[in-house]
Amino acid sequence: MSEKVTMSMGSGGRDSDELVLKVFADTFDNEILNAMEDAALVSPDIGMGERLAITTDSFVVTPEFFRGGDIGRLSVCGTVNDLLMRGAVPKYITCGWIIETGAPIEKIKKAAVSMAEAAAEAGVIIVSGDTKVVDGDGGFFINTTGVGVVPGGRNISASGARPGDRIIVSGNLGDHHAAILSERMSIETDISSDAAPLVEMCEGIPELNIHSMRDITRGGLGTVLKELALSSDAAFIINEKDIPVSDKVRDFCALLGLYPIYMGNEGKLALIISPEDADEALRIIKSSKYGENACVIGEVTEPDKKAGFETGCVYGRTSIGGIREIDKLMGEGLPRIC
Amino acid sequence: MSEKVTMSMGSGGRDSDELVLKVFADTFDNEILNAMEDAALVSPDIGMGERLAITTDSFVVTPEFFRGGDIGRLSVCGTVNDLLMRGAVPKYITCGWIIETGAPIEKIKKAAVSMAEAAAEAGVIIVSGDTKVVDGDGGFFINTTGVGVVPGGRNISASGARPGDRIIVSGNLGDHHAAILSERMSIETDISSDAAPLVEMCEGIPELNIHSMRDITRGGLGTVLKELALSSDAAFIINEKDIPVSDKVRDFCALLGLYPIYMGNEGKLALIISPEDADEALRIIKSSKYGENACVIGEVTEPDKKAGFETGCVYGRTSIGGIREIDKLMGEGLPRIC
Repeated sequence: MSEKVTMSMGSGGRDSDELVLKVFADTFDNEILNAMEDAALVSPDIGMGERLAITTDSFVVTPEFFRGGDIGRLSVCGTVNDLLMRGAVPKYITCGWIIETGAPIEKIKKAAVSMAEAAAEAGVIIVSGDTKVVDGDGGFFINTTGVGVVPGGRNISASGARPGDRIIVSGNLGDHHAAILSERMSIETDISSDAAPLVEMCEGIPELNIHSMRDITRGGLGTVLKELALSSDAAFIINEKDIPVSDKVRDFCALLGLYPIYMGNEGKLALIISPEDADEALRIIKSSKYGENACVIGEVTEPDKKAGFETGCVYGRTSIGGIREIDKLMGEGLPRIC
Repeated sequence: MSEKVTMSMGSGGRDSDELVLKVFADTFDNEILNAMEDAALVSPDIGMGERLAITTDSFVVTPEFFRGGDIGRLSVCGTVNDLLMRGAVPKYITCGWIIETGAPIEKIKKAAVSMAEAAAEAGVIIVSGDTKVVDGDGGFFINTTGVGVVPGGRNISASGARPGDRIIVSGNLGDHHAAILSERMSIETDISSDAAPLVEMCEGIPELNIHSMRDITRGGLGTVLKELALSSDAAFIINEKDIPVSDKVRDFCALLGLYPIYMGNEGKLALIISPEDADEALRIIKSSKYGENACVIGEVTEPDKKAGFETGCVYGRTSIGGIREIDKLMGEGLPRIC
């Protein structure tokens, strides 16, 4: 590992893992954190088999305002979605602002209004805040920490995938990534970020037999599936032609040589669910806000030495019928995408 | 208010209020947040009259390492102390790291080890983390959010002060401020930061008749007392000669023209307590770790037009017997002190 922090350690991919595993995981070693889930489940005496879910996330996206959203909306959606991925009902959110000198008050206010609107949409209350000021060029960062309640009996974790399970993606991939990149490069397009709180989408599905669920953010679908396959000791096979991508994003990717499977999103989830519940889950997701383009993209399979399928691996069936292995995102990805 | 964020808006004093009140308070308007307490109390169904306490804080101190502590220790102590100030038992903590490129991994690791040690001392578990990388010069920021449980029946808030109450300060003021400033100015001194989790100190006192409690951080004792006086609609009188300050810090202040009452601390609290419980509280604090220099510094009084004591005001009795009003910290204070 490099002796200094590099931009690629913020990618959400392999280099991020190195930083997290070598520096933080050993140091903070405890059972709850070691689970490396989207949100931590803790059990104070809240009775009725309920548990608290706690998650934290910082947002450093640049530019702070973009088509389809801004850092304020993102900071609520990202944290709310992390709570939802553990089956929690999001309840409370905190916000810590680190603001560089020279930031226009108007801009801060606009992002705060977006936060408030997203919180209202997601049904969470902003209960605590903090502001710090540092020297700089007028940018700002927001940390949000979310607290939710997991009803008794729900048990969704990264390690739940089993052979036969279906893999569902809740909608088109790559929109957030393409929106940020096009803003930064002044490319004319009307692609909008998908930043959204998936509260409505997740209201019905945790009652089904969900084995794993994760939102598809930094590092993209490839990174998320690889993490789930590793945690579950399972092999995943996806049909690359089934991955939902809008025509606009597909054209954008073709132009820039991007691969949607590694592009970041802020309002999409991947669901691993038992085959008998897959149709019902898909129906619920498709009929919910932000879920209209959901589809099944693959399945969990038995490891098969002859076929070359190993546990902890993700395989893509290409459009011409070949099979290739899909690893986590390598390298920098798009810096400061969230 | 300035149209751009200035360094003084990070002081914790009057200019910070302006930013918080005009930009965030209106926008996030809700009963829990509007209380403007050190930690928010929320009530999911945790039974037995218990409530959850939630608080968030970001740490941007520079330099990151200083005599008596570092940003890692600070980030745990600050948040744990905010929970304690509401009578909560601190349970869980999250950490969000924003790291500038070029930061030595060794330095990050050292701060993480400090966090882990402070968390162990405070009895909290680090349950969730996040890392983001931004361009920069190798510095880093840490957000910590804390969750604790308030036992049934405890009710400590900023608005509880009543005439006759005693005002206790838990120890010498100004050490953290002087330690940071001397590091930055390369002044030779052995003054150490007081950064400490006040868990042991707070174990016994919430069972007493505490009316208000607040840790004395950014903005110093003057700012804290003014906030409590305003929240309680009370008048406070303190004896300036009774404010505990070590000889070293007193000399340091004399040299630089600093006033200990506005200097930041990271392991001190101010307590407003009924007169009949004041002696017992002082005994508990003095016998606890970090509390040996605690003392009573003043009392809450009836507003008295003739004597010139108005509600929401703090008055200092000077060493020569005069009375002067003590307002919140004005201006910049010491930037990036925590």
